[in-house]
Amino acid sequence: MPISKAIIKKIKSLHQAKFRRVENAFFVEGKKSVEEALQSGWKVLYAFTTESNLSSDNMELITELEMAQISSLSTPSNFLAVMEIPQMSLEENSNKVLYLDGVRDPGNLGTILRTADWLGWKNVVLSNDCVELWNPKVIQSTMGSIFKVNVISDEAGTWLTEAQSKGSKIYGADLNGTSIKQELPQFPLVMILGSESHGIREAAKEFVQQYITIPSSGNAESLNVAIAGSIIMYQWS
Amino acid sequence: MPISKAIIKKIKSLHQAKFRRVENAFFVEGKKSVEEALQSGWKVLYAFTTESNLSSDNMELITELEMAQISSLSTPSNFLAVMEIPQMSLEENSNKVLYLDGVRDPGNLGTILRTADWLGWKNVVLSNDCVELWNPKVIQSTMGSIFKVNVISDEAGTWLTEAQSKGSKIYGADLNGTSIKQELPQFPLVMILGSESHGIREAAKEFVQQYITIPSSGNAESLNVAIAGSIIMYQWS
Repeated sequence: MPISKAIIKKIKSLHQAKFRRVENAFFVEGKKSVEEALQSGWKVLYAFTTESNLSSDNMELITELEMAQISSLSTPSNFLAVMEIPQMSLEENSNKVLYLDGVRDPGNLGTILRTADWLGWKNVVLSNDCVELWNPKVIQSTMGSIFKVNVISDEAGTWLTEAQSKGSKIYGADLNGTSIKQELPQFPLVMILGSESHGIREAAKEFVQQYITIPSSGNAESLNVAIAGSIIMYQWS
Repeated sequence: MPISKAIIKKIKSLHQAKFRRVENAFFVEGKKSVEEALQSGWKVLYAFTTESNLSSDNMELITELEMAQISSLSTPSNFLAVMEIPQMSLEENSNKVLYLDGVRDPGNLGTILRTADWLGWKNVVLSNDCVELWNPKVIQSTMGSIFKVNVISDEAGTWLTEAQSKGSKIYGADLNGTSIKQELPQFPLVMILGSESHGIREAAKEFVQQYITIPSSGNAESLNVAIAGSIIMYQWS
C-alpha cells in the first residue's frame, strides 16, 4: 500500500528542527541504524524499507521513489524509521560524565557519542548551544549508538553547579593542561570538552578544577574535537 | 589588478583530480592552512586573500567575487593558495609508519593526518585505492598538517613486502585482535588500518603478524576509522 501524502509530508517536515520539536519525533536512516532503532525499546512511529524480502510486520515496504521523497540523504538508504523522542536521563551515580560545551558540528557530536558508547562513557550532557541531538547528521554519525547512550541537554545551564555540589571532580580539556598520561582521574568525574574554535567558554571554565591535555610530539596546533574527546575517554576508561 | 580569466579557469580545474595530476598542483583554503602553506617551504604557485590589510608581496589581493569563483567551499574563506605537488618520501629509519588500506572518506583521511602530526606519527603510506591525498576535502581536514607529515602512495602495492623484508613488525587493527592496552609495540613497526566498511583487505592481511584492537566496554559495533587510528597512534606514541 503506498505511503500517504500526509505521512510523506510529515516525515519530510522532520528534516527541520522546529518540526522535530513540534512532533516530538526524529528519524534514522541506514540498515544498521534502523535495526538498532527497532531493537531499542524506544517507540517506533514508522519504519520503512525498500527491500521486499526484509519487509515485515515491523517494517513497511515502500518504493525507492517514496524513500527518496522522505530521505534526508542525497543517496537514500533502503531503510528509514521515525522514532518518538524519548525522555532521557543520566544513570544515577554514574562515575564519569562527558560534558560537551558548544559542540556545533553534527558529525563531531555523532562520532563522539558513537565512541562514548564503545568506550563505556554512557552519560553525556550537552550545553544548550550544542547542535541539536536529533539532527539527522548527528543521528547518522552515531551509527546506532544514539540508542545506547544517555544524553541530556543542559537547558538551564545549571547542570555543572549540581555536579559540583554532588562532589564530582570537574576536568576540562585545554591545550595548556596537565598531560593526561600523567594525571590519574578521580572519580566521580565530569570531563568538559569545548568546541574546536572556541575551547571551553568562560561560563563553564568557572567550574573546572583541573585542566588536562593530550601530549603532542608534533607540530599540529590542535586536534579535532571528536579525536581529542575519544583519546581522553580512552585513556580514562 | 584583477585575476585573469585564464588563471581562474586553471584554479577551478584543480577542483578535479585529473587536472591536479596534469598540472601537478593542488590548492588549500582557509587562513590557517594558507599560512602553513606559505611557511612550508613548498613551492607556492599562487596565493590570494580578500583582506586588503593582509595582502603583501606573498599574497595577492582579490575580490570576494573572484574568491567565490575559485573556491571549492560553499562559504569561501578569505584565503586560497595554489601549491605545486611535491615529491614526498618517508623519513629513513622511521620507527613507526601508519599504512592506510582503502580509506576512501576524505574527511577521515585528513583527520588522520592531522592527528598523526599531533602525535608524532610523521610517516604515512596510502594504499593505491585510498582517496587521493590532494582532494580539497582531505587538505581542508588536515588543517595545515599536510605540510608537516610525509605521505607516500603505495602505487605498486609492494611497499608492505619491502617493509617486511627490512624487518619491521607489521600490525593490523581488527575487532578480533589483542587489546592494545596489553600489547607492547615492537619497533620498527607498521600499523595497518583498513576502512570501516571492509576492514583490512586480503592482499594486506597476508603481511599482518599481530592483530590489535581497542578494548570496548560498551555495545557499539565499530569505531570510526579516524577515531580508531587516533587512539592506536596515541597509545603507541
